[in-house]
Amino acid sequence: MENTKEQLKNSVGNVEAKTFTFAEPPGEMKLESGVKLGPITLAYETYGTLNSDKTNAIVIFHTLTMDAHAAGFHQGDKHPGWWDNLIGPSKAFDTNKYFVICVNVLGGCKGSTGPASINPKTGKPYGLNFPVITVNDMVETQRVLIRDHLGIKKILCMAGGSMGGLQALQWAVAYPDEVASVIAIAANARQTAQQIALHEVGRQAIMKDPDWKNGDYYGKSIPANGLAVARMLGHVTYMSDKSMEEKFGRKLFDKEKFGYDFSHEFEVENYLKYRSENFVQRFDANSYLYISKALDYFDLAPNGDLAKAFRNIKASFLVVSFTSDWLYPAYQAKEMVKALKSNDLDVSYCEVQSDYGHDAFLVEIAGQAHLIQHYLARIQREIKK
Amino acid sequence: MENTKEQLKNSVGNVEAKTFTFAEPPGEMKLESGVKLGPITLAYETYGTLNSDKTNAIVIFHTLTMDAHAAGFHQGDKHPGWWDNLIGPSKAFDTNKYFVICVNVLGGCKGSTGPASINPKTGKPYGLNFPVITVNDMVETQRVLIRDHLGIKKILCMAGGSMGGLQALQWAVAYPDEVASVIAIAANARQTAQQIALHEVGRQAIMKDPDWKNGDYYGKSIPANGLAVARMLGHVTYMSDKSMEEKFGRKLFDKEKFGYDFSHEFEVENYLKYRSENFVQRFDANSYLYISKALDYFDLAPNGDLAKAFRNIKASFLVVSFTSDWLYPAYQAKEMVKALKSNDLDVSYCEVQSDYGHDAFLVEIAGQAHLIQHYLARIQREIKK
Repeated sequence: MENTKEQLKNSVGNVEAKTFTFAEPPGEMKLESGVKLGPITLAYETYGTLNSDKTNAIVIFHTLTMDAHAAGFHQGDKHPGWWDNLIGPSKAFDTNKYFVICVNVLGGCKGSTGPASINPKTGKPYGLNFPVITVNDMVETQRVLIRDHLGIKKILCMAGGSMGGLQALQWAVAYPDEVASVIAIAANARQTAQQIALHEVGRQAIMKDPDWKNGDYYGKSIPANGLAVARMLGHVTYMSDKSMEEKFGRKLFDKEKFGYDFSHEFEVENYLKYRSENFVQRFDANSYLYISKALDYFDLAPNGDLAKAFRNIKASFLVVSFTSDWLYPAYQAKEMVKALKSNDLDVSYCEVQSDYGHDAFLVEIAGQAHLIQHYLARIQREIKK
Repeated sequence: MENTKEQLKNSVGNVEAKTFTFAEPPGEMKLESGVKLGPITLAYETYGTLNSDKTNAIVIFHTLTMDAHAAGFHQGDKHPGWWDNLIGPSKAFDTNKYFVICVNVLGGCKGSTGPASINPKTGKPYGLNFPVITVNDMVETQRVLIRDHLGIKKILCMAGGSMGGLQALQWAVAYPDEVASVIAIAANARQTAQQIALHEVGRQAIMKDPDWKNGDYYGKSIPANGLAVARMLGHVTYMSDKSMEEKFGRKLFDKEKFGYDFSHEFEVENYLKYRSENFVQRFDANSYLYISKALDYFDLAPNGDLAKAFRNIKASFLVVSFTSDWLYPAYQAKEMVKALKSNDLDVSYCEVQSDYGHDAFLVEIAGQAHLIQHYLARIQREIKK
């Protein structure tokens, strides 16, 4: 079941926002946990044109709090999709050449099935009856869309930053024959104790909010306070000490001297307030719980042998990390690179000098565009050989 | 007004836990904000014996969430004071030689006047009627106790880690003739945007808890949920990526395989829960707000010229930082050292190799004991010359 929702008003070539629904009961999809789920709807956008032999497809994966809207403008939007400056005609992901797909993840709240979706068994939103999902489950659902529905048997490139990179990696491990290349940016092969701990602080902020009501808050007050705190913490982890110092320093907010009260004294406090208030308007608290939980489970080598976990991979890799990213530190990318190289895979690695922290993958555009463009050109040349 | 509360059951020499009350109205103390406060009670402990010319006093300052109980055991306690392994006979702060004082800060909740204290004007706890305080206010109150009440005109050494180091620095700047030496560990001369942001996330977690009730929760439900989230975040910032990986890694909590539900899957999640539940039993949420706010205001050189801000200092310095401390990174200690040295002051600096993050100042005892012991011996030799 496929629906075209809207044509995007933009300049990225042929663009469409669609939904696709599958796994209608009784043919529900079995998740990694063993629980069955269906029907499953995935919202996705495409930019550019799929060629006749379906060999020019690139899949872009989004992060914890983003969605399928990676490029172009939706009707009435002031801001384009989240990676618009890398996706479009003559951009790094050149929509004159490539057919770019971005799918809202399972568990999300932007058109794909998630905890806010209606549970067909009850006629009410799933809430906590939604099953716990994993990055692997995200990939399995994407594959139904891409391979079975769109008929694309091999993806030219899978690319993403942060959680997006994790999905690309999971694809390359799970379906080595279907992924020609991977661009993994600010990513890792296993979530660490620190990452799990940071997710857990955010989740506890949400789950301790009385409005969360064990996940059953739809149609009532949303747990905006808890979600706001989770988002504030998120922002601190996405920036670096240095980028916060450069952007805010100790600048006062809307005053010339200290007020000595519990209103915001500093600009950085107001920034966190402003950004978190925006966020709670656009994101579902339960999706935050489920997707952060999916991240926690991510570990491509539970036995510790990453080289072995990577031994079936056939894709070539471009791995990018950023010097000031402390949420996904460069050493984690290097561990991946080492394990890939130990399997004699083609790996390019670049540690980009940047003060922007984890946010760099959204901000350091020129450097990434250069790397991606040349990498894709090389991949295409090698495939044609 | 002075009261001896109890003799400590321990082996650190002559030890006493006392309170001292001053600034009785109308002689209230004027705070940095201009607001007047009084009476002010300070809880403090002393270890060892003050010599007859009062020249062997060392002041130890505590962190955001600690208190005056730095060493020894209180009746019935299982654990000694927070720096017990550095304070005692023949320890780094040798109570056979030195008279060690530790004062619970103004704004605290362990005997000193803070937001949970009774406001004499209303007969009820201050709550948010307690004035906003600064590190300078902490120092001013400590000075009344140490100089006016105990009659100690010059302190041999002032030492502390984290917020404790900030108080020592503030003393050395404000009262250069009264401080012979400073040991500043895991500290800095100004709070950065990242530090302020982390404080603010914790504060918002507390203030968004419906039980916080604008600070007026005494005798009712305490904002335990918000305070727990603040403390969880605190713990993540006190550890390092590496120490969390070594301590917890991806170890599961009380299970052998994933449960795929919202109970805790990982040990690190349970650790945060356990530690935060302990914390809310022992610490007042409003004190957390006031003391973290005091940290935010801390900046010894608002105009950016730290060398100039340090130009009146006479104390010699031992500055210690830890390689994996990302909350008070080593570069901030080095900025201090540079500014001190530019004033021709005697400064020893050591960046200790440690994986324990900010917690290192509580954990890396052997290395610190060695540094402190030799530094104090040298200071005493030089004073005698």
